[in-house]
Amino acid sequence: MHQHGHDDPNAKNLYELIKDVKIAMMTTAEGGKLHTRPMYNMDADEHGDLWFFTQIGSAKMQELSRDSEVSLGYSDPSSQTYVAVTGRAEIVRDKAKIDEKWSEPLKAWFPKGKDDPEIALLRVHPERGEFWDTPSSTIVHLVGYVKAAVTGERADPGDHAKVDLHG
Amino acid sequence: MHQHGHDDPNAKNLYELIKDVKIAMMTTAEGGKLHTRPMYNMDADEHGDLWFFTQIGSAKMQELSRDSEVSLGYSDPSSQTYVAVTGRAEIVRDKAKIDEKWSEPLKAWFPKGKDDPEIALLRVHPERGEFWDTPSSTIVHLVGYVKAAVTGERADPGDHAKVDLHG
Repeated sequence: MHQHGHDDPNAKNLYELIKDVKIAMMTTAEGGKLHTRPMYNMDADEHGDLWFFTQIGSAKMQELSRDSEVSLGYSDPSSQTYVAVTGRAEIVRDKAKIDEKWSEPLKAWFPKGKDDPEIALLRVHPERGEFWDTPSSTIVHLVGYVKAAVTGERADPGDHAKVDLHG
Repeated sequence: MHQHGHDDPNAKNLYELIKDVKIAMMTTAEGGKLHTRPMYNMDADEHGDLWFFTQIGSAKMQELSRDSEVSLGYSDPSSQTYVAVTGRAEIVRDKAKIDEKWSEPLKAWFPKGKDDPEIALLRVHPERGEFWDTPSSTIVHLVGYVKAAVTGERADPGDHAKVDLHG
């Protein structure tokens, strides 16, 4: 996979770890006020970006319009997986992209389906990733601190901060 | 238990949900930069406050000295538990409190034990809590938005923001 085709084995490990965690806890900060909620996690794309479905008009859309930085916490105590990813979120309302990313399990969250005009995508460009390995059932250690900007492209802050509530 | 002895059944539910999640993902924000890491979760105390062990000199101590707000994400996909708590963190270096809160599993994280001069407690006063119920394996709904300040005491921002790196 393309997002694994770079030199950092830690980034590869990170993507492997989060692939099986179906829910990420996404934290936004608006004016210093933190807000965390669960989000349905899909596979990373070929650029290493992470995608989530969301609803136009939700609180997080408001928050992201003022500050696009998000932190994603992936945790699964049963497999002792603990991963944190920080990045910039961009709202994507492109219908072709929505069609491409849609899958039936999402209907549980978005009962009106992918043609709902209120549905949108959040694309998170990872800037930093960390994960913790757990050699015993009680140990959680920091084992890797990785740059998760996996394509090697230099991030353009203008691109990354682009949040358009009006499509 | 005292933290359940108030009128809001949602707050009671919230404490029940997080009791079995042994790791919380704690997010701090310093100057808008978000940082998330796993923390070993202990039972809430009789005031409804949440306690965590930490290390003097860790990045989060720096961050909390500038902004004491934290968001805690508790997630356990196997039981479909998703809880978010926002509050203020206070650093506690009282030896008696450290002794009281210490338990042997913590040795995996803090190999020098409870007498390590670098060990400290973080006490989080919850200000807001949310949890999501999952009636089916794919559904995550917001079912409750609770004020988790469970004692009914009015929060004093001066008390809550007290973060002293120098003990």
